[in-house]
Amino acid sequence: MLYKNSLGISHEIIKKIVKEGDIVVDATAGNGNDTLFLACLVGNAGVVYSFDIQEVAILNTKKRLEEAKVYDRVKLIHDGHENVDKYINKNVKAVMFNLGYLPKGDHGKATKGKTTIKSIEKCLELLQVDGVITIVIYYGGDSGFEEKDEIFSYIKNIDSKKYAVLVHEFVNQMNCPPIAVCIEKIC
Amino acid sequence: MLYKNSLGISHEIIKKIVKEGDIVVDATAGNGNDTLFLACLVGNAGVVYSFDIQEVAILNTKKRLEEAKVYDRVKLIHDGHENVDKYINKNVKAVMFNLGYLPKGDHGKATKGKTTIKSIEKCLELLQVDGVITIVIYYGGDSGFEEKDEIFSYIKNIDSKKYAVLVHEFVNQMNCPPIAVCIEKIC
Repeated sequence: MLYKNSLGISHEIIKKIVKEGDIVVDATAGNGNDTLFLACLVGNAGVVYSFDIQEVAILNTKKRLEEAKVYDRVKLIHDGHENVDKYINKNVKAVMFNLGYLPKGDHGKATKGKTTIKSIEKCLELLQVDGVITIVIYYGGDSGFEEKDEIFSYIKNIDSKKYAVLVHEFVNQMNCPPIAVCIEKIC
Repeated sequence: MLYKNSLGISHEIIKKIVKEGDIVVDATAGNGNDTLFLACLVGNAGVVYSFDIQEVAILNTKKRLEEAKVYDRVKLIHDGHENVDKYINKNVKAVMFNLGYLPKGDHGKATKGKTTIKSIEKCLELLQVDGVITIVIYYGGDSGFEEKDEIFSYIKNIDSKKYAVLVHEFVNQMNCPPIAVCIEKIC
């Protein structure tokens, strides 16, 4: 299959953009999938900044990185991604957001529109030209609808002279399939 | 830039899918851009069926193909794409729709939702597994809004067990940027 799902689309975009030695961000460490993915792409010379507000997410991610022997190139930060500018003051090549709650975790601790948007805003400033932000938006069941609507209102108004905002949506699937957003800095 | 526009997205999808020797369809010959693109991809052993209801489109396309020395692998058909099943009775790898009116042509002769949907329906049946239909939808100015709404109503209801329907939309651009749709036959 060409496109399995929105997570696959976000990975495909990141693979096209991120090269060895790049500085990148995982805005939502979760269980470490994307942090590990990014750590492999940037190689020994690169850096991955990886954020999560939940200690269990930081610990799970650390474990996965150590097992894969790539922990040396990752800065794990136990703080909300809306504080990204406290930790990074140089341009980054890519930022990945994988929203929602920690798999098998507390639904009440899901990402929230207000802080997600604050983080995206700051990441837009950190992004280098030709760099990208990918956002996988989960909604359905008991959560995510409000965050989705807030993010859509926000991304529709991002300056089109500086950024291209492309939304990928599987429109014929049942049960609110995740949506993949790609924001590219064009100048 | 990663993605310039919807036409670029449709071409990127087609390039991933179409190989030498394939049988493919350009549902809207227009001035021959996509027919020429497909003719180059399928090579000597492949076949491109290319439809248009306007004679001027057929003539312009024929001229471009002859100049590029690839006319031998193209069947130009001066008929509406809703009659695709009259001309093709075998599986195809890809179908490209580039909707709207002929560039610099008569806006009144734009594609229409009813016939476009009839054609998509028939092409879904002709498609081989892992094959794709790409549709670039133009709307804005004096036309295209009704066709866009009709197509969206239709594609949302395509059987998700058999087909994945992915919509690509640039959400922060002014003036109704074209939308790229990719329908993949998954089984």
